[in-house]
Amino acid sequence: MSLSLPLAALPRGFRFAAVRAGIKPSGRPDLACIVADQPASAAALFTSNRVVAAPITVGRAHLAASRGRVRAVVVNSGNANCATGAVGIATCEQVCDAAAAQFGCATAEVFPSSTGIIGVPLPGEKLVAALPAAEAALAASAEDFAGFANAILTTDTRAKIAYASVEIEGKPVRIAGACKGAGMIHPQLVPHATMLVYLLTDAAIEPAALATLLNEAGEVSFNRISIDGDTSTNDTVLLLASGASGVSVSAHDQGFQAALTEVCTSLAKQIVDDGEGVTHVVTLEIESAPSDADALRVAKSIAHSPLVKTAWAGNDPNWGRLVAAIGYSGVAIDPNRIDIWFGELPICADGGRSPDYDEHAAHALLLSREVTIRIALGVGAGRCRFWTTDLTADYVHINAAYST
Amino acid sequence: MSLSLPLAALPRGFRFAAVRAGIKPSGRPDLACIVADQPASAAALFTSNRVVAAPITVGRAHLAASRGRVRAVVVNSGNANCATGAVGIATCEQVCDAAAAQFGCATAEVFPSSTGIIGVPLPGEKLVAALPAAEAALAASAEDFAGFANAILTTDTRAKIAYASVEIEGKPVRIAGACKGAGMIHPQLVPHATMLVYLLTDAAIEPAALATLLNEAGEVSFNRISIDGDTSTNDTVLLLASGASGVSVSAHDQGFQAALTEVCTSLAKQIVDDGEGVTHVVTLEIESAPSDADALRVAKSIAHSPLVKTAWAGNDPNWGRLVAAIGYSGVAIDPNRIDIWFGELPICADGGRSPDYDEHAAHALLLSREVTIRIALGVGAGRCRFWTTDLTADYVHINAAYST
Repeated sequence: MSLSLPLAALPRGFRFAAVRAGIKPSGRPDLACIVADQPASAAALFTSNRVVAAPITVGRAHLAASRGRVRAVVVNSGNANCATGAVGIATCEQVCDAAAAQFGCATAEVFPSSTGIIGVPLPGEKLVAALPAAEAALAASAEDFAGFANAILTTDTRAKIAYASVEIEGKPVRIAGACKGAGMIHPQLVPHATMLVYLLTDAAIEPAALATLLNEAGEVSFNRISIDGDTSTNDTVLLLASGASGVSVSAHDQGFQAALTEVCTSLAKQIVDDGEGVTHVVTLEIESAPSDADALRVAKSIAHSPLVKTAWAGNDPNWGRLVAAIGYSGVAIDPNRIDIWFGELPICADGGRSPDYDEHAAHALLLSREVTIRIALGVGAGRCRFWTTDLTADYVHINAAYST
Repeated sequence: MSLSLPLAALPRGFRFAAVRAGIKPSGRPDLACIVADQPASAAALFTSNRVVAAPITVGRAHLAASRGRVRAVVVNSGNANCATGAVGIATCEQVCDAAAAQFGCATAEVFPSSTGIIGVPLPGEKLVAALPAAEAALAASAEDFAGFANAILTTDTRAKIAYASVEIEGKPVRIAGACKGAGMIHPQLVPHATMLVYLLTDAAIEPAALATLLNEAGEVSFNRISIDGDTSTNDTVLLLASGASGVSVSAHDQGFQAALTEVCTSLAKQIVDDGEGVTHVVTLEIESAPSDADALRVAKSIAHSPLVKTAWAGNDPNWGRLVAAIGYSGVAIDPNRIDIWFGELPICADGGRSPDYDEHAAHALLLSREVTIRIALGVGAGRCRFWTTDLTADYVHINAAYST
């Protein structure tokens, strides 16, 4: 396994397991667990899709009932347990009940997640049957964390982890995260997002403070990415704080906030980089918009334009498509004040082709996998940074493969 | 040419021409004209994109200055004359001036249109040089109309025409239309849309009444289609009434309105059917939504979901993606009341898999090019019909081809 989280970076107070429950047709590990040595403080962000998977409903209820305490996280990949009705909820609850018994905690202290196909009943009995093996596998090494990070994957091509540590009051506090997601990625998280993100820290933080810290970090990371514009029914970001470092952190600790945001941003960018069929990762820097919210609308209009995304796939500096997408964003732009740069290359000035436009240089720049496009709207002080991808024939092949 | 508009169906009072001006690299006809024998009443719908092409700005000004009278329509394909700044406007005006001199009318009676690449200066001198040949070619046969319909095409694979006639006060009134568009198709027309639509009638209708009739027809036809969700900078629908039939029609003539709507709907569906890379044409019938506007939002959320569209491309009845797109539409749906049918096949009932779901039958149905998907939200009386397409690897290839 190529993951390189050093053991010293792993937040203290957690153990990990990944086993085969038989949900994934591939036979790969598909049941992943995190168990905290003591009940951990928890904060979560969930999808704003009005159709939500059973584990979202159950997880939200459990966090409320436990007043933000989590002892065990139980994740299955291969089936989203979504659009499965009352049976789906009951199945999720049964798995939580069994996990509570297995790991020695209250059912409300179990946080469930599912990811995979929508609309197919979840075979909960397979998960329940695999729980004893999961408990037997629990361990706190970097390899175990990597095993967790791998077992939660679906169409991802690789595991995604990030970590940071910050010294507070002379003592180290560790933050580490693992996530999955490669398609149906346009998280629109609300505080109470088929992206699953698990963040761990060994700081001691009360649940309310943890929620404040997570909201701020999530807003500029996971809520600033899109692969295909499809907002999933299952997106979840969970942050657990074990307190095992012995260091207390408040809601307004800037050092911790910066470190958490760094980890979240790294994970968000890894998701985009591993997007289905992706050959270009584009950072959009929108500036001088009427407002920050308007800058975000412009970024999303571009990030969701099939014509813009297919031009990127073709290394084609067809900036006219960018201008069109800006124009239909709904933002009160002035067409004659739009300036665009690809990297450092001037492309569009005052809404028209820049006098310094160099077609060959622009094309050459687009041959890189990573491209930054800066757009100045010239009408205000609003800005945002957003990460997105091209749209390739491979994306279509991956998602058009009829395999049920 | 396979077009089969009978001469008897051609509105009286118009002549047509199509010539080669040298804009299209292919060397195909790229300058198309319609000249009315007498100044015709005119009404138009334009894109709501805030970035608009020069001919939109000029055409709107001309219609205002002429009080809704048009003598000549001058269309070039191969270059959109968009994001071309003040020079683009001046070039458009020069072409209109030359056309006015050539066809013997006022400049304000010339209506310009352009379609093609954005951001490249339009070589107006090529158009001006081709105008004498265009005038020499003007004629009123069905073949000439077909020639016009062909010369306005860009990535379209075929010309699109439709016609209807209606008897009013015992006399025949003719309506015919030609249009182009295969990508960047999600018209959001406002009364004052790179879809170009030219509608002709020989009824006598005042410009204000013509606008009323056109608004109503456009709303349920061109504003109800999407191929890729990209709203163009150049979309234009122009309706000209020559009066040559000698029959006067009012704004509230139901027979004329129905015939006009029929022609517009046929053209809108032909655009979707000829969409770039399209292998499935899907009619969405949304019903029992909170409101008609909400039904339209749900339809657009589905029509713009890459995951839904790629599933269709793969003949995959992955209805979970439909449910997810409904969920993030922003409409206040109840996830437990969603019913979905593919054709007559029950797919989803009460938000979960229908007890009568037949995977093989659903897959077999999706092997057809034309599919109707009916979605009942169960929360109101709102409804809409919307036409859209799948998203195929060919769409990506067409739009990723770097060829400048």
